Amino acid sequence: MKVTVMGLGLMGTALAEALLRNGHETTVWNRSPAKAAPLVGKGAAQARTPAEAVAASDLVIVCLSVYANVQDVLDEAAGALAGRTVANLTNGTPRQARAMAERVAGHGADYLDGGIMAVPPMIGNPGALVLYSGSRRAFDAHRGTLEALAGARFLGGDAGLAPLYDLALLSAMYGMFGGYYHAMALVGTEKVTAEEFTPMVADWLTAMLAGLPGAARHIDGGDHATEVSSIANNAAGFPNLVDAARDQGIGTTLLEPIGELIDRAYAEGHGADALTRLVELIQNPRPE
Amino acid sequence: MKVTVMGLGLMGTALAEALLRNGHETTVWNRSPAKAAPLVGKGAAQARTPAEAVAASDLVIVCLSVYANVQDVLDEAAGALAGRTVANLTNGTPRQARAMAERVAGHGADYLDGGIMAVPPMIGNPGALVLYSGSRRAFDAHRGTLEALAGARFLGGDAGLAPLYDLALLSAMYGMFGGYYHAMALVGTEKVTAEEFTPMVADWLTAMLAGLPGAARHIDGGDHATEVSSIANNAAGFPNLVDAARDQGIGTTLLEPIGELIDRAYAEGHGADALTRLVELIQNPRPE
Repeated sequence: MKVTVMGLGLMGTALAEALLRNGHETTVWNRSPAKAAPLVGKGAAQARTPAEAVAASDLVIVCLSVYANVQDVLDEAAGALAGRTVANLTNGTPRQARAMAERVAGHGADYLDGGIMAVPPMIGNPGALVLYSGSRRAFDAHRGTLEALAGARFLGGDAGLAPLYDLALLSAMYGMFGGYYHAMALVGTEKVTAEEFTPMVADWLTAMLAGLPGAARHIDGGDHATEVSSIANNAAGFPNLVDAARDQGIGTTLLEPIGELIDRAYAEGHGADALTRLVELIQNPRPE
Repeated sequence: MKVTVMGLGLMGTALAEALLRNGHETTVWNRSPAKAAPLVGKGAAQARTPAEAVAASDLVIVCLSVYANVQDVLDEAAGALAGRTVANLTNGTPRQARAMAERVAGHGADYLDGGIMAVPPMIGNPGALVLYSGSRRAFDAHRGTLEALAGARFLGGDAGLAPLYDLALLSAMYGMFGGYYHAMALVGTEKVTAEEFTPMVADWLTAMLAGLPGAARHIDGGDHATEVSSIANNAAGFPNLVDAARDQGIGTTLLEPIGELIDRAYAEGHGADALTRLVELIQNPRPE
């Protein structure tokens, strides 16, 4: 298949390399043309302009740093877009994706928005996943090619869904990493090494992950009754985390907002509920 | 073995039940004596006073709501403590544990502090873990009995280590749960169910957990060089998480402190480093 990759940062380069390894006729373009040289050495054709890049292939994969750049590049190539598919894998928000879907449709092209759940070295290898949303027709037509990059999962016709899921998964990741970093900072004050402590954290978090399907039933059912770990229990115990961090001289900023949510849930009368009640509080933030 | 359990909340009751199931001669005490009735029905002896409870056994397990209550109870039983072991499984901080160790030693008893990494229904079942620190001699003498409750791991002679590890593991858990709740709140704005989304989160977090041993090497080595996901990359992408949360009308408080740490790391010149650099920033908080 003929495929174009626009944007040759670490991720765009990894995408182009995976396509070349899979035997696709690959055209590349980057605003600073020098970045294309290693890919040309591996068999890629180099387009001189965005319009030339778009004209070269039915499937145009765009991977830039921000949506504003995607808009600039596609505007420059607007005359060549009709009848093609734009798969935009640039990081952005649901709102940006929806606006881009309208803009691209206005040029007569099909639009897919994609959220890449992988770092560049994972591209083309097992475990990488790209979430897509937008044109089902375009996804079905190009699925085989897209799977050269990563596992491909279609979420629905709303182009905003892929970034929505992407950002939700990243939020969960940042939460877990933040918790791990705080834990390491805390035990590190007593010279416990990360090598010693990390397997214990990994085992513990793996055990806690096993509870998520039960949490999901609470959340979907709106029934947060629990007999094991109530908001009241958590509200009583949480100050120990903050006190210990202060006693050991480390920061408490990562702990505070979860403690505030627990306190708010307790104050709003949810003391007997499970922590899953917090989802509703996040969805109904207090006015600032 | 003769064992006493003082404090019969959900957790203390679960501890006493596990001891009874394992055939230990179990004495129980609770400030409100009515809570002992179900355990007496299962074969426990009921002590009328803290002194009587302590006098009944060589191993005295204490599981109250806060350390202040532990201190009151042990003061009442002070005359009976000499030569016994107090295993205090009450939630607290390293500072509280160290003070209690001194106090108990002053009464001529051995002291173990314990952090229970389980909810009550897990006690006596596979997967439950209690972390201990304090008197190695007491741990060795009573390990067999303590393993009726949960897996038992001894961390060292500083009584503060068990609560330190306990609170660190809880911090990691709260981080992960907070991230999951935010993720659920975000996708829930588009009517995505928890049942649909949770397996994807669990797979993603499991994949991210696999990176923790690599993170541990960065942290221990103080070398945060990365080619996959730098502070600069994260600083550029993080505002999308906050913008998307705002666009979807949900709270951003769980996201903000991690974004602030990333921005601070970038501002302090660590843009080329991995996120693991954040551990040092948490250990050196900015003055408030």
